[in-house]
Amino acid sequence: MYGLILAGGSGSRLWPLSRELYPKQLLNIQNTESLLQATFERLAECMPSSHIISMTGVKHVANVRYQLSSLCDNPVVLSEPISKNTAPAIALAAKYIVEKFNTDPVVLVVPSDHMINDTEKFIATVKEGEKIAEMGYIVTFGIKPSYPETGYGYINVTDKHIERGFKVNRFVEKPDTELAEKYVKEGTYYWNSGIFMFKASVLLEELAKCSPDIYSKLSNFDFTDSNEIPFTEFEKMPSISIDYAVMEKSDKIALLKLESDWNDLGSWKSIYDVGKKDEDGNVKIGHVLDEGSKNSLMYSSSKLVATIGLEDTVIVETEDAILACKSDRTQDVKKIFETLKKQNDDTHLVHKTVYRPWGYYTVLAQGRGFLTKMIQVNPGQKLSVQSHNHRSEHWVVLEGMAKVVLEGKEHILSPGHSIDIDVKEIHSLQNPYKDVLKIIEVQKGELLIEEDIIRYEDMYGRV
Amino acid sequence: MYGLILAGGSGSRLWPLSRELYPKQLLNIQNTESLLQATFERLAECMPSSHIISMTGVKHVANVRYQLSSLCDNPVVLSEPISKNTAPAIALAAKYIVEKFNTDPVVLVVPSDHMINDTEKFIATVKEGEKIAEMGYIVTFGIKPSYPETGYGYINVTDKHIERGFKVNRFVEKPDTELAEKYVKEGTYYWNSGIFMFKASVLLEELAKCSPDIYSKLSNFDFTDSNEIPFTEFEKMPSISIDYAVMEKSDKIALLKLESDWNDLGSWKSIYDVGKKDEDGNVKIGHVLDEGSKNSLMYSSSKLVATIGLEDTVIVETEDAILACKSDRTQDVKKIFETLKKQNDDTHLVHKTVYRPWGYYTVLAQGRGFLTKMIQVNPGQKLSVQSHNHRSEHWVVLEGMAKVVLEGKEHILSPGHSIDIDVKEIHSLQNPYKDVLKIIEVQKGELLIEEDIIRYEDMYGRV
Repeated sequence: MYGLILAGGSGSRLWPLSRELYPKQLLNIQNTESLLQATFERLAECMPSSHIISMTGVKHVANVRYQLSSLCDNPVVLSEPISKNTAPAIALAAKYIVEKFNTDPVVLVVPSDHMINDTEKFIATVKEGEKIAEMGYIVTFGIKPSYPETGYGYINVTDKHIERGFKVNRFVEKPDTELAEKYVKEGTYYWNSGIFMFKASVLLEELAKCSPDIYSKLSNFDFTDSNEIPFTEFEKMPSISIDYAVMEKSDKIALLKLESDWNDLGSWKSIYDVGKKDEDGNVKIGHVLDEGSKNSLMYSSSKLVATIGLEDTVIVETEDAILACKSDRTQDVKKIFETLKKQNDDTHLVHKTVYRPWGYYTVLAQGRGFLTKMIQVNPGQKLSVQSHNHRSEHWVVLEGMAKVVLEGKEHILSPGHSIDIDVKEIHSLQNPYKDVLKIIEVQKGELLIEEDIIRYEDMYGRV
Repeated sequence: MYGLILAGGSGSRLWPLSRELYPKQLLNIQNTESLLQATFERLAECMPSSHIISMTGVKHVANVRYQLSSLCDNPVVLSEPISKNTAPAIALAAKYIVEKFNTDPVVLVVPSDHMINDTEKFIATVKEGEKIAEMGYIVTFGIKPSYPETGYGYINVTDKHIERGFKVNRFVEKPDTELAEKYVKEGTYYWNSGIFMFKASVLLEELAKCSPDIYSKLSNFDFTDSNEIPFTEFEKMPSISIDYAVMEKSDKIALLKLESDWNDLGSWKSIYDVGKKDEDGNVKIGHVLDEGSKNSLMYSSSKLVATIGLEDTVIVETEDAILACKSDRTQDVKKIFETLKKQNDDTHLVHKTVYRPWGYYTVLAQGRGFLTKMIQVNPGQKLSVQSHNHRSEHWVVLEGMAKVVLEGKEHILSPGHSIDIDVKEIHSLQNPYKDVLKIIEVQKGELLIEEDIIRYEDMYGRV
């Protein structure tokens, strides 16, 4: 079996913890690992790690690769040059597996940002699904609805059994409350989990029938010697979901009930729902002090959050933005996100702390002509060999030891020591030691933007 | 006439905006000036600035003097070495005025943290009060109660007129709701504003009668050649309020109704009450984005505060602490403050940004063996000539120009330039120029505390 992890995402639903450049699947909400990492580990119980492919947007590739690197050597991460929804991504992944591995296996496709705790039951469902997929069906995993949710799509099944699954009658869009209540009552409707399985050749055949506009363009991609998806070809793909492109049109769709727990963590309300509650029904994460609140979620990422007498409220603190929201309005977080985007307010886009393959940096202060960052370089890591056209830099070591190469000359700096890097000087920062390296960087210049960077060498392939 | 501004305070009620070391009167809540500055300016309409004395705790002296320096030359600020409530402070101020100025004037005593917008009506009341004080009465200003507040003390008056005031019958403690309702109905009860006037000699005579334990100790203080209140003598004073010590016992108390507006800003609820409301009844201060909240206060001091669907809620954001509180529970902010104090959590004590006579500093980052600050030195200001026993420092100029004297040698540094200061080296930082100076300071050492500072010279008298 092979696996495909869909690791895109806009980062809007769990704002301000998620950002456009740091979406939900990268977050570590409750555990010591991110949702993406948990997803990878779940799949690795069903297949060899080397059979797992992740597909993500070009903006997230470095972070996805970095997170997966701690779980396996050389994770396969394919990068979509622009967002074209799920159908082109899944079609290309199927082609990739067939060409690269010269095989026609069953492929398990999973979103990267859902929470499933009961891995054993998940594996059992996958094994059932594999049988049905081998029979030539596209098997979608359905969730037995526990209440009339209006935020999900539903799948209606016929009474025709295929092994332990059902033949699908039709897919339905997000219903209104009345319709959702009817669906739950009838018992033949399931929530669409976005998890499904198919033989690669079956998907490609169904694609040829149902979406020839996608299928016909697949021949323009060649993965035999490359892991790259070229922008010029990918751009020609229609932007369409796999549900629209195949699932709703094909007559080879089966539904299998997912036996494990499942939560799509689609809003702060659902984070509250899965959280561990105290005797007042509060979920407290981080540095929180409360006086008499009830049924509320308090999330502190660093600062003290003090709450008094709240009810059914969500408070989320991050370095540069605070959210305070009534629990029944958490869907509207998206509106705030969109407003910020329209206002060109970077608060929707990035955190003050930005993760990189080599560690992270935090913007500490900025002003007229200067920008100050704290930079952490993890042991064994190295920033690219680079220069800047518009800024000089000054580095002071805080913790650990730094190896700096400046215009070909090597400098080893211990805490308290500093170095000046002039405009256009070629330099690199490296931590070849066992302890974390922390430095303060003071940038000076008229133009202080991330884009002012000329890379000469990079151990993460970013040249 | 002379004035006494009582500028102490614990900083608990408007936490997290107020802190133990930055109490309410120093805050700039709505205007371009602090409550203390507004109080000083109000008094300066009634008397020469040189007649205004401020009394505050030793912890606040530098900040009080700094804020008043922008309003007059050499403001008189007396420092209480420890907190002994209001009676000893007022008694010493009366003695100070009599001895220092060799006169027996009427003294107007005012808290520094109340909001009064109608200065004209305030002045008119003061002029009425002066007449009654000249007749030998201690005149307290009463507020006509507009609702049965249980958080204030009340003053009951007789029907005996003294000019446009009344002879006082008795002072009453904070009542319960039933009693408060009765007081409001009866019409002979007023809220105790804490503002009062007296001839210095009258106060001292009444003190001799009502509180001989305080009066007898006054002779141990001598202000003829000094502005200092010695710790060893002040420590012997009882800790007692002027209400207990004199007002409740003396038969020379008159009450004059304060004709102006008045708000003691004693809680976030009262900040909401005086704030400018939008059409949904929200008061928004700072960088706030709202979706459908009602009757709420959103206060952002720097970061984005996004709110959705809140009702009757107070959200306050500061650099290191967030408060989210139902409007009817804002009195309980004190409980959070006390809990933090018990936990030795500095969040009750100081802000990340600490104001100094020469400007301010903000702690940007701290870790094992290092501490990083951004320091702003205002034009014309200079930090003390100093050295440290346990830390080295590294300064990088961000904005403006720095004059640094290190071991007797002068260095002029422009943006991007840096200097190292070793342990025990004597150094000073100065901004003799017209623009603001901003630097990054990286401290390195095993012991990084504010107290590790040996001062040799200081333009603010802190040696």
